[in-house]
This record gives sequence, C-alpha cells and structure tokens, in this order.
Amino acid sequence: MIHYRQNPNGPSPLPFSPATVVGNLIFVSGQASTDANGAIVADTFEGEFRRSVENMRRILREAGTDLNQVVRICSYVRDPANLSTYNQLYREYFTEPYPARTTLTGCLPESLHFEIDCIAVVPSE
Amino acid sequence: MIHYRQNPNGPSPLPFSPATVVGNLIFVSGQASTDANGAIVADTFEGEFRRSVENMRRILREAGTDLNQVVRICSYVRDPANLSTYNQLYREYFTEPYPARTTLTGCLPESLHFEIDCIAVVPSE
Amino acid sequence: MIHYRQNPNGPSPLPFSPATVVGNLIFVSGQASTDANGAIVADTFEGEFRRSVENMRRILREAGTDLNQVVRICSYVRDPANLSTYNQLYREYFTEPYPARTTLTGCLPESLHFEIDCIAVVPSE
Repeated sequence: MIHYRQNPNGPSPLPFSPATVVGNLIFVSGQASTDANGAIVADTFEGEFRRSVENMRRILREAGTDLNQVVRICSYVRDPANLSTYNQLYREYFTEPYPARTTLTGCLPESLHFEIDCIAVVPSE
Repeated sequence: MIHYRQNPNGPSPLPFSPATVVGNLIFVSGQASTDANGAIVADTFEGEFRRSVENMRRILREAGTDLNQVVRICSYVRDPANLSTYNQLYREYFTEPYPARTTLTGCLPESLHFEIDCIAVVPSE
Repeated sequence: MIHYRQNPNGPSPLPFSPATVVGNLIFVSGQASTDANGAIVADTFEGEFRRSVENMRRILREAGTDLNQVVRICSYVRDPANLSTYNQLYREYFTEPYPARTTLTGCLPESLHFEIDCIAVVPSE
C-alpha cells in the first residue's frame, strides 16, 4: 500500500492521508474547499465545488492518474438547492463516459457546502 | 475500465454512468426509484425500495453478474422510521451469506425515500 | 468471495455480513457501538467511538489483517460538535501513515452517536 502524505516532512495536521494506493486503485479522501495547508476556504457553492474537485484532481495527478480514470465518485452537497448547479459544474470537470456516482445531501457540517471523494485507476506505466 | 452508458446512442441525461467495471469489480451508481428514462417515480417506501433494488439488479445482470455477487452495499433510508421495513424488504432480495453493508439515514433530498449503491464481483467467464 | 458470518451456526439477526473478502481486499460493514450479540450499547460519544472501532478491529483481526492495513475509512459522526473529540480519539487507533478518510455528519439515527466502515488489505500469507 502506498500512502500519499499531507506533510511528507512531519506529522499530518489531520489524521488522514490524501490518498492511498492498492494495486491499480487509488482511494482519495474526502476533498473540500481547502487551501494548500488544509485550512477551509469558505466560498460560494461554485467556489467550493471547484476548489474541492481541483484538490482531488491534483492528488490524482500526483499519483500518475487523472479525473478521466475515476471509477466511482461520492459527492456530498449540503444544501439540496444546489443540486442543479452541482450537475452543471460537474460536467465541466467530467466528460463522457462518466464515472459511477452517488450524490448525498445534508451530511456535512455547516462550515462546508460541498465535499467529494473517489476511487480511480492508476494506469500501469 | 468499462463504462455502462445511460444512453449508448447519445449524451447522458445526468453526468454519471450506471456502472463502471475495473478488473473483476463493478461499481454501481446510487440507484433510486426511477423509470427507464431516469425520471424519479415517487412511491411508498416499499415501492421505492423495490424499484431501486430492481434497477441495481438489472444493471448487475447486464454486466454478467447478480445480487448474490454483491460485496458491499451502501443504503440510504431518508426517514429512520422506515428502517425495520427496510430490513424486511432487504431479505427478499438478499440471502445468506449477505454482502457487507452500511445503512445511513437522512442524506437524501425530499424527493426520495431510498437510494442504494454497491460494489460487486463480475465472475470471469 | 469470502463472507464473515454474524452467526456461523444459524441465521443472521440482521441481513449483513460483518465483512466480505474479494482478492486481497476486505470490506467491513458499518460498525457501531454494539455488543457481541449485535445489540446497540448506548454510551457517550467516546464510549461509542471506542466500541465501534474495536468491533472493526476485531473483524479485521479475524480475517488476518489489522487497523494498520486499512486503505479507506468512512466515519459517520452524528453531532458535528463531536468532530474534534473524534479526531483526537482517532489518533489513538490509527497512526501515520493514515488511511484515506471521509467523515460525514448527521446521517445516523438518534440511537447512534457514531458509526465507521472500511476497506482494508488482507496480506497474503
């Protein structure tokens, strides 16, 4: 198992790895609207969505893969009023053929509008 | 990776694939009480449960597998008052030995009573 | 696929297996604060957290693996007020390098403060 570390030179500020790899699968932790230090950046739904997905994409790219290799997405949209915006924005980052997906509402603390995690394939070199 | 398409002849009405396959695992998207066009069919809890699980079963069968090959279920029961009905109905579709399972409550929009997703094995031919 | 059974000598009280194994991956069902018979033990957040994680650890050990082989955690913390306690307690059971993780709030019935599930590697002998 490979662990991608939050802070390769010291202890992790929060007790999770951004991602782990087993065989040809990468499991990416729930990504929210956070900056490079992991601090939450409060924003509009759109701003939080973009920052979350771009954080996920950066982790995938560091591991040698990308959004087009995602097998399965779980998305968490706190306020169901944002579901149609969510689907619009989603199509900017994901294209046919799409990953499998489950979208839940609620289930996030008030400090977040959005969170996303995934399982993706890491192509063998 | 294999993607099962919502609409093999044109764009997907919603940005997800019903399922994706990697190696011998299939990842099925959250299935709700929807008709063949993906439109939500509002119903009783029981009606929504049956339509959701039957949608999942149809996708599994199209991929050459079935409910008895499911490894892991996530179920979303919006109203906890339906949890005992849920467990009763569940035993009509799944038999010993059961898949692993997590059941969450809330976390669905008001338009749905139930949703379910899974990871299953696709037996090699 | 291997299924770990709740009750190897008779029918399962609830329709799920504690865990299933496919290849070198084990999928553990949502673990809550339950006793050896699966009955819920109401407790403080800390008590429920410990009982849940210890149930998960016991299942992993029965399958020949352990918490340090966990690839991905999903945690469900009903009351977001417990999130900082949760992260403190979590560090008692998990150490660097950590699993990938997603933490959701709400999404549990009133009878539970906490639930946790995982995917882990089962080392080949």
